[in-house]
Amino acid sequence: MPSPSERLSEHELSQLCEAAFRGLGLSAADAADVAQVLVLADLFGLTTHGVSRIESYGERLALGGINPRASIRIDTLAPVIARVHGDNAVGPLVGMHALRAAMQMAERFGVGVALARQSNHFGPISPYSYLAAQQGFASIIGSNATTTIAPWGGSDARLGNSPVGFAVPNPGGDPFMLDMAMSVVARAKIRQALKQGQTIPETWATDEQGRPTSDPAAALKGFLQAIGGHKGYGLALWVDLFAGLLSDAAYLTHVKSWVDSPDEPQNLGHFFILINTRVLGSADWLTERMKDFAAILRDSPAIDPDRPVLLPGEIELSKLRQQRTEGIEVDAETLARLRAYATTHQGD
Amino acid sequence: MPSPSERLSEHELSQLCEAAFRGLGLSAADAADVAQVLVLADLFGLTTHGVSRIESYGERLALGGINPRASIRIDTLAPVIARVHGDNAVGPLVGMHALRAAMQMAERFGVGVALARQSNHFGPISPYSYLAAQQGFASIIGSNATTTIAPWGGSDARLGNSPVGFAVPNPGGDPFMLDMAMSVVARAKIRQALKQGQTIPETWATDEQGRPTSDPAAALKGFLQAIGGHKGYGLALWVDLFAGLLSDAAYLTHVKSWVDSPDEPQNLGHFFILINTRVLGSADWLTERMKDFAAILRDSPAIDPDRPVLLPGEIELSKLRQQRTEGIEVDAETLARLRAYATTHQGD
Repeated sequence: MPSPSERLSEHELSQLCEAAFRGLGLSAADAADVAQVLVLADLFGLTTHGVSRIESYGERLALGGINPRASIRIDTLAPVIARVHGDNAVGPLVGMHALRAAMQMAERFGVGVALARQSNHFGPISPYSYLAAQQGFASIIGSNATTTIAPWGGSDARLGNSPVGFAVPNPGGDPFMLDMAMSVVARAKIRQALKQGQTIPETWATDEQGRPTSDPAAALKGFLQAIGGHKGYGLALWVDLFAGLLSDAAYLTHVKSWVDSPDEPQNLGHFFILINTRVLGSADWLTERMKDFAAILRDSPAIDPDRPVLLPGEIELSKLRQQRTEGIEVDAETLARLRAYATTHQGD
Repeated sequence: MPSPSERLSEHELSQLCEAAFRGLGLSAADAADVAQVLVLADLFGLTTHGVSRIESYGERLALGGINPRASIRIDTLAPVIARVHGDNAVGPLVGMHALRAAMQMAERFGVGVALARQSNHFGPISPYSYLAAQQGFASIIGSNATTTIAPWGGSDARLGNSPVGFAVPNPGGDPFMLDMAMSVVARAKIRQALKQGQTIPETWATDEQGRPTSDPAAALKGFLQAIGGHKGYGLALWVDLFAGLLSDAAYLTHVKSWVDSPDEPQNLGHFFILINTRVLGSADWLTERMKDFAAILRDSPAIDPDRPVLLPGEIELSKLRQQRTEGIEVDAETLARLRAYATTHQGD
């Protein structure tokens, strides 16, 4: 029987999440940054990357695998390139520092690039790209990740299922927000097929020897396949090169496993490329074009009349509006964890 | 019986290509820019996007669909954002102007962004990303294109099979170069299957109604499918938003068809994002990391021992080295066209 969930307002969940991270040793300002990213993830409906992550962040903070009192340092390598040294802080905190650094540069120069190292899992991309879009910045944001994918033609895990996101603001409506990883599907979908006794398409995963398989059990022992074969392989490498190699973080197999080595710094890397769209034209100019762009796509007759054409970010932004009104549903287990950590916080 | 091809040295082919574009009305400097892009494409083995394009460029220049004496103007919208107004010049010429503008900004500020409008098909991405990488610039470069893909869930062509490329320089070895379009395969592969009487995987294309099909004949009447379904759809939209919408060019269905309206300006758009890797660390630092990155991938045991793991760009760069030594193979038909245009050039 599933545990009952509760509905909290955005404000309540933010307060609780902040208190939990303060309980885990973070300063008030740092806890607020982390809470902003995780609560936005929940608002978008990305619950697997939202406040439920308190479980793994909590474990790693407790074991010393993440530094609760990190001193994040930012080096300006060029007028519009900042390198963010995360000092092994919680990922979303490093992410927020990098985002702000990139926004400041983009405000002044039109473009800002922040490359972060010494970080951890920083949540989904959407919270960052949404905050950037709200202030008029288009973005390309990516992170590397623990290795789960084999190189194209190879037979062991050497690259991560790296997330990458792209967003374009819309002063008069919904921004465009694409937030994706490089695999055709998440492992969860393969586990689901196994549970339901179904086969899977051969494009989803390979077995242990790197051969495409329709058997979900064999797939779970093997590797995820990247979208478009060699194209997804190339895209995943691009993200790791920008997020890991150029940022001076770990890359490929050098990234420590979050699951297998919870007490060791991952040295994950991220990149943030922001473009200030306010210098490109007026708010009316951009609104008009974004509206027309969306209308052209939506006017395409749907193959299935019950499933009209959608734009990337549409589902997440609709969920955000709904949950800002009706509250955010949080499962009981996550709430119990948040409350337990929150009560250990006695002020600092 | 196929016509015999000839081998020309890089210098000979460049000279001939320049003369042909001068014959078509371009200035010497402009013809040299165009020739540089097209000959590099041939050197990489991308023959469909190389000097053979003289056929379509020639037709459009002759019909007035492209302006041979364009005045390309560059507006500086912010210290690191340039908008390039192509004045309907040949695409590779607009591309080279944008590339140089981005490199100049990146040299000074660490990053440079050029957004081009009023352009045409600018060739493959690799020539630009290669030239940038040779000077130490990492790049993200993209262009929109005539509509050939249906929106995810839609049933008519509303977005282009937009090319995008990513490169990272390597001062002591081969750069990483990924140059891809968003479809699972090119239409040529479907035509080939039809000719050979074979079925195609259902992931390649849809029929006229937007339903996945294994029949190549139905597929050729329908639409290409993007890699990873909604992910490739999102990626194609991202490229069009940056290359077309933000650059103030045409986008989606506003892009004029190269084939159906050869006499009308396409108003295609491109974007160039360059990062100066020389400010990130020493040449030794980058070389060492790029060497290690490649070694990790190559060390993955190949599924098929005859097909070792490759890195994006490896095939193209090996072809470049080979053809710089042995000459570039050009088909007789293309050579005849180049020579015919070249003879019409009487100096200017």
